[in-house]
Amino acid sequence: MTGVRIAGVGMTPFDSHPDRTGRELFGEASSEAIDDSSVTRDDIDAIFYGNFMGAFAEGQNHQGPLMADAAGLSVPATRFESACTSSGVAVREAVSKIRGGEADVLLVGGMERMTNMGTAGATKGLASAADDLYEVRSGVTFPGAYALMARAYFEEYGGTHEDLAHIAVKNHDNALVNDHAHLQQEITVEDALEAPEIASPFTLYDSCPISDGASALVLASPEYAAEHDLEASVAITGAGHGGDTMALHDRQSLSKTPATREAAEAAYDDADIEPSDVAIAEVHDCFTIAEVFALEALGLYSYGEAIGAARRGETRRDGELPVNLSGGLKAKGHPVGATGAAQVAAIATLLDGTHPRADAVSDDATVGVAHNAGGTVASATVHVLEVLE
Amino acid sequence: MTGVRIAGVGMTPFDSHPDRTGRELFGEASSEAIDDSSVTRDDIDAIFYGNFMGAFAEGQNHQGPLMADAAGLSVPATRFESACTSSGVAVREAVSKIRGGEADVLLVGGMERMTNMGTAGATKGLASAADDLYEVRSGVTFPGAYALMARAYFEEYGGTHEDLAHIAVKNHDNALVNDHAHLQQEITVEDALEAPEIASPFTLYDSCPISDGASALVLASPEYAAEHDLEASVAITGAGHGGDTMALHDRQSLSKTPATREAAEAAYDDADIEPSDVAIAEVHDCFTIAEVFALEALGLYSYGEAIGAARRGETRRDGELPVNLSGGLKAKGHPVGATGAAQVAAIATLLDGTHPRADAVSDDATVGVAHNAGGTVASATVHVLEVLE
Repeated sequence: MTGVRIAGVGMTPFDSHPDRTGRELFGEASSEAIDDSSVTRDDIDAIFYGNFMGAFAEGQNHQGPLMADAAGLSVPATRFESACTSSGVAVREAVSKIRGGEADVLLVGGMERMTNMGTAGATKGLASAADDLYEVRSGVTFPGAYALMARAYFEEYGGTHEDLAHIAVKNHDNALVNDHAHLQQEITVEDALEAPEIASPFTLYDSCPISDGASALVLASPEYAAEHDLEASVAITGAGHGGDTMALHDRQSLSKTPATREAAEAAYDDADIEPSDVAIAEVHDCFTIAEVFALEALGLYSYGEAIGAARRGETRRDGELPVNLSGGLKAKGHPVGATGAAQVAAIATLLDGTHPRADAVSDDATVGVAHNAGGTVASATVHVLEVLE
Repeated sequence: MTGVRIAGVGMTPFDSHPDRTGRELFGEASSEAIDDSSVTRDDIDAIFYGNFMGAFAEGQNHQGPLMADAAGLSVPATRFESACTSSGVAVREAVSKIRGGEADVLLVGGMERMTNMGTAGATKGLASAADDLYEVRSGVTFPGAYALMARAYFEEYGGTHEDLAHIAVKNHDNALVNDHAHLQQEITVEDALEAPEIASPFTLYDSCPISDGASALVLASPEYAAEHDLEASVAITGAGHGGDTMALHDRQSLSKTPATREAAEAAYDDADIEPSDVAIAEVHDCFTIAEVFALEALGLYSYGEAIGAARRGETRRDGELPVNLSGGLKAKGHPVGATGAAQVAAIATLLDGTHPRADAVSDDATVGVAHNAGGTVASATVHVLEVLE
């Protein structure tokens, strides 16, 4: 199999880290990934790194070389910024680079600091992922934008806030054993329904938290992995990137996310799999409704069908298609730039048996999908991971 | 020859554009490049786009999909941020992507708005390319940082401010016929020496201006270009990316820029050329001394020898090795995210005879180099361009 090997993974706890700089967070995650990989630093060709709002959080752009320093590397370093897809895009381009033969080993990951900005600062920072001129200046922030999309979905396909509450409950439940998750807190459907409303139909538990954290992967070519006897039992066999209009008002529909569909079709073609082959998925649940959009656009459910998936138990950890076993953005947390690579790390460790929720993965599961989205899904990446035979 | 074809180029005038948004600027440059290429929009696979400080200038991150909208495209869009190397890195990764076979045609470019922030705002924004914690908070901004580097160079190799003034005079002179240049203003060595001091040894004319603008390229695979009979007489045959420590205090020397050397060696190896093959160069002269660092690290001069190149006339347009015929950052202007792709556009049009300074290029010139740098050269990219036979 010619997939790009996942040789090592690392991540900091996703949490509020008020006293830790971004370089410290990424230094920790990257060192963990490098140690986990048994690759020597001298063999790492470059860093592909995702960060979203470092300009606001730390007055710090040009984080590529800064993070090379933090990782103990003297290599070319590239920062990708694609809002909440920042490290998803970094992974996607790293796959291209290794496949194209221009790199054997890449350190890929991301980092975000958010909590140091306070709620208003983080909200302003997050809003920079939307169209400043036509959305943000009209007062649209992300809870409102996704709430509009949820209402459009309900209108087109049906569904209730209680359906969404089941998604929150599921993802919180999944995170209970994950020490790296920001919110290790059990909630009930009643808790979710009775929480303060943030943007109708959402209450507080429909939204992911504001988190700090970093994630890292060591990716290697099959040839390098074979030559160096790397222990890498999972590979990225498919990668896709999709785009959509930046602003919601330019979309044909508010209840579908075609950027995800485009990324998924590309990734499935690339890996030569069908949606029915997928055993587990980590999807971009920045808000509960986003999990619904993702499952449908990924082709794992027909349009209009995913809204009841958590309620019916199908996407719970004892269901047919466990989704967001890590806790998802909802409970694991969402340090924006770190999320995409962390999702890939979650699927890799779920498939190789080292994730704390790996016991929920069926013994014959060989294919998992990681889905990362930016803004109101103006950007999306999908990666197919497979267990090597 | 297997180089990536430069099928089209476009750029806005580099200038102060107080009434034009970033999307408008990039829309103009990208439409010009697409029209110039005769590629249909349907054939463009993706956008690779560089922007540095959009978070500050327009409260706008996630500019990839926004610029896809502006370019009239519905494709995946990736933003690269590497300070002043932002679109240099976009070009470098676009070359990888096309060579690897994952794209046939890419729109590549960049944009920056700076003048709307005022001098203090732009200075703050630019400072985010340096180490916030250890440099910026100590009061180091870029004029000061490069001035330190100039003084270290003078101490090690000799040289005077008058040598630097000759670089400014040369680049201003080159820009006089370039309608896209920000500063079309003849200056003398005396003007440069007598201008207000900004950071010893620099006076005002040692620094590039603060500019707004956008640039774009249509890059295509040789196979696509052949199939579609594209008029593309220049190709990128070599690409390299180098990195160095973020902060000056971690460097072994302040008078050399090893990131450029690393990028150049990679690019020359890639293109299978020697520095002696290079007929023209566009180099990153954000400050006059930076042109000296670039020429030496590019191997076009030995260390210590480039300081007198402009004074001796060698790098003037009637010299042996014309450098920054476009006017360089110094006089053409430096809208940060647009610069790297604009340098590639300049070399391409100088080599194909369509640049207003093409008459300064020798008829038998076939090889040009574009060099882009970020921060105090913590990042650098080098591209080798060659005329197709």
